[in-house]
Amino acid sequence: MNIPLDRDKPMALPRQIQAHLERLIHERLLTPGTKLPATRELARQLGVNRGTVALAYEELVATGWARAHVGQGTFVAERPASGAVPAPPVATPVALDWSGLFSRSAQILGADDERSRAVTPIPSSGAVVSFAGGMPDSGLFPTDAFRRVLNQVIREEGPSLLQYYPAGGYPPLRRYLSTYLLRFGIEARPEEILIVNGSQQGFDLIARTLIDPGDFVAIEQPTYPRAMQVFRSFGAQLLSVPWGETGPRAEVFERLLERHAPKLFYCQPSAHNPTGLAVAPETARRLLEVAARHQVPIIEDGFDGSLFYGDSPTLPLKAVDRGGVVVYIGTFSKILFPGLRLGWLVGPPQILERLQAAKQLADLHTSAMIQAAVHRFCERKLLDRHATRVATEYARRRSLLLTALRRRMPAEVTWTEPQGGFSLLLTLPSGMDAGTLLQQAIERGVAFTPGAPFFVDGGGQRTLRLSFSSVAAGRIDEGIRRLAETIKAARARLRGRERIERAVVPVV
Amino acid sequence: MNIPLDRDKPMALPRQIQAHLERLIHERLLTPGTKLPATRELARQLGVNRGTVALAYEELVATGWARAHVGQGTFVAERPASGAVPAPPVATPVALDWSGLFSRSAQILGADDERSRAVTPIPSSGAVVSFAGGMPDSGLFPTDAFRRVLNQVIREEGPSLLQYYPAGGYPPLRRYLSTYLLRFGIEARPEEILIVNGSQQGFDLIARTLIDPGDFVAIEQPTYPRAMQVFRSFGAQLLSVPWGETGPRAEVFERLLERHAPKLFYCQPSAHNPTGLAVAPETARRLLEVAARHQVPIIEDGFDGSLFYGDSPTLPLKAVDRGGVVVYIGTFSKILFPGLRLGWLVGPPQILERLQAAKQLADLHTSAMIQAAVHRFCERKLLDRHATRVATEYARRRSLLLTALRRRMPAEVTWTEPQGGFSLLLTLPSGMDAGTLLQQAIERGVAFTPGAPFFVDGGGQRTLRLSFSSVAAGRIDEGIRRLAETIKAARARLRGRERIERAVVPVV
Repeated sequence: MNIPLDRDKPMALPRQIQAHLERLIHERLLTPGTKLPATRELARQLGVNRGTVALAYEELVATGWARAHVGQGTFVAERPASGAVPAPPVATPVALDWSGLFSRSAQILGADDERSRAVTPIPSSGAVVSFAGGMPDSGLFPTDAFRRVLNQVIREEGPSLLQYYPAGGYPPLRRYLSTYLLRFGIEARPEEILIVNGSQQGFDLIARTLIDPGDFVAIEQPTYPRAMQVFRSFGAQLLSVPWGETGPRAEVFERLLERHAPKLFYCQPSAHNPTGLAVAPETARRLLEVAARHQVPIIEDGFDGSLFYGDSPTLPLKAVDRGGVVVYIGTFSKILFPGLRLGWLVGPPQILERLQAAKQLADLHTSAMIQAAVHRFCERKLLDRHATRVATEYARRRSLLLTALRRRMPAEVTWTEPQGGFSLLLTLPSGMDAGTLLQQAIERGVAFTPGAPFFVDGGGQRTLRLSFSSVAAGRIDEGIRRLAETIKAARARLRGRERIERAVVPVV
Repeated sequence: MNIPLDRDKPMALPRQIQAHLERLIHERLLTPGTKLPATRELARQLGVNRGTVALAYEELVATGWARAHVGQGTFVAERPASGAVPAPPVATPVALDWSGLFSRSAQILGADDERSRAVTPIPSSGAVVSFAGGMPDSGLFPTDAFRRVLNQVIREEGPSLLQYYPAGGYPPLRRYLSTYLLRFGIEARPEEILIVNGSQQGFDLIARTLIDPGDFVAIEQPTYPRAMQVFRSFGAQLLSVPWGETGPRAEVFERLLERHAPKLFYCQPSAHNPTGLAVAPETARRLLEVAARHQVPIIEDGFDGSLFYGDSPTLPLKAVDRGGVVVYIGTFSKILFPGLRLGWLVGPPQILERLQAAKQLADLHTSAMIQAAVHRFCERKLLDRHATRVATEYARRRSLLLTALRRRMPAEVTWTEPQGGFSLLLTLPSGMDAGTLLQQAIERGVAFTPGAPFFVDGGGQRTLRLSFSSVAAGRIDEGIRRLAETIKAARARLRGRERIERAVVPVV
């Protein structure tokens, strides 16, 4: 412990020590129950007599800040005695003013943060049926099976998994992924696969490898807000390509490429968040052809091919990419555990080498222990078994959600029919705003995610996202009933207001 | 599997399927022993008759690319039959040219990579005594104790640790660190501590939060090369402050701050890599005072206070920082396991909030499972026990190294005496170059890290780093004997050359 002592001060040394410790306790830097250093130890550190420290401790006990337990030492009191007020700090520090020091990127992020603070918080109480979280259901996690494979790999190769590791990733996992991805039509050699900390780090590495401030980035609309945020934080200007019936509209995409020469195009073709739609094969071919012709990379945010709701999974763009224009982002977050932060990038060697250098710079490498455990989990076919189980369950929830919507919603409400992913996008009757509706919905015991943040350049106020992945099957219908009631009530109020407004408009 | 079939082609469908699979096997995308999809399954995926796929498989087996195991299916052959040459690919893809697309940051990194490829690789064979790796010794890892705490936390709170988690970190670990850091004089509330993926991610988050292209960054010289690389990759220009006897020279620091107003100053005050030196208290005070007066943040790359080689650990700058100018980077990589990628940042709330936003953008959060396991390990006092054990062992190795150097090295060789860290810096006799010496050293069975990469703006060719942390105590003297022999031999050659050069210089 570092207690600055001033021998020239009128305040005696024991009192200085006491005052410092009182402040640490008061500011909860020393928390209740913490054992104070032994008197001999602290005396040695501070270069004072042991008696000086003992005096300070005695005074702390007398004033109720600490308790002495004979033979055990002195401990911070559970609750300071009433009236115990700490001595004021010795000197007010000259504080550095950080606000003038932030980079452009930090300023962009800061502005984003301000906006997100304005969002209505969603209560996690059990009384609210929440369609808001876009994560897999932790109630379905194969936690114990994972714990067992973790034990196995640590027993077998612990020290090397806990040492520094090459940036590219755990070789057996890269080899496994190479074969695994073939199932979905993606051909990638192990050395064309880079292990990263989830898809979020994938966005970040791609952005820093391709984007300079002022560059244009083409992006599907609506889209995943965190992807927008990453590209913006690197100084990119976003240009949107709206989704049509069959995917991002190829003719808009082509015009945009002709006019603005963006650095890349970002999309989620196989399980679009928030709509759950997928790109049709013909649209996929057109997008790829246009991108290759204009030499613009496509960043494909993929979704595990084992989770789909039609007859067969949509082929990833990467599987039909003949021009080598696609960088594919994969993740174990949806199909296994989000908390492991484990994902991967697939791309041509020329770009993958640069992404790997960026990865090394960012955090050296992803935990090899986690990579090895997931590899073992996959190799033992535990992932396949788990995927089958959750795919069935999520399909059931999706189906219950669609049934409930059809049954409960008023006629002016529409929604997308998800072919993949964890959510759908619902559009409210005209004149309604999902942000405003959320507060009313929470009061009726249901929550969702307003759609506006998924839109690049404003819009989407009438839309909201309903995630079905982490709502128990038995609560879906009840949740939608409450949401329908909320919408009907809001619509009634709206009509009432419209009647009044019409009534007060002077006839001219 | 995605096999593009063309019904208009003269090549029959079974032959097209066969050719595609041959290519996948030849390119090792399908590795030996891999089971091919069941004929019915693949036929469904491709929209052909089952017989078509069966014909293709039969032909693959006949040509030696695959083997059929009755009742089990068809598998890729271990070794293709000699003479088995795959069909050529259907069409050559129009490849995207990535080279024109890289960001400025990627270009800087790419140039760095080119340089590092020129470095002599160090063989990991047991015949070479390697002082090159600056990591803790994995032979000392408490692997099994860690495995047990990992089991405990997964059993107790697995699903929540494997789900998405708040960006700031696992609250009990932040609280533990708050108390732990007090031991070393650092006062930080849990909310002033941000969990990151090792100190490397710390550099990265700090750089992106504070640095814009063209900014100046002041940096100690010599210093840790990866820190330089991060700042450079964000477009910073580095200005060096040389180490003197007691730390970075404060008067040079002050002049530099007056003239260039750098965005930050980076240093490793308590266990300087490569020298192992520590900043003296008086120099620390001067550096802090100058930084506060000029409003320049100090980025302190810390080293665990439990590992030191004098009477008491050096106080971190953060412990005596009255002006709130220091951001402290801590890590479990040196004291526990590097491979966990677990570290933390300590700083005033104003900057910490921005760093947390950057962390969330970079990869959402650090694995909560790993954080919880390390917390449990610390809370059970297993870290304290481990730290005592390794501190003793590293102190012993340091002492053996210093003894060997004193005993073996010729008089013109000098070195630093480490007060902390894992290494020292040795300076060769004038005229010698450590980069050239390395190849000769490896031939004699000893390796080290050349010092030049630790220098910001050239220089350091005569220096080399010797790490003692991962060399078994029993091999240190032998390693230094070999190094001394190498140096003596090189010096003899050098003198011979000088004599010749002197001899051929015409007398004028």
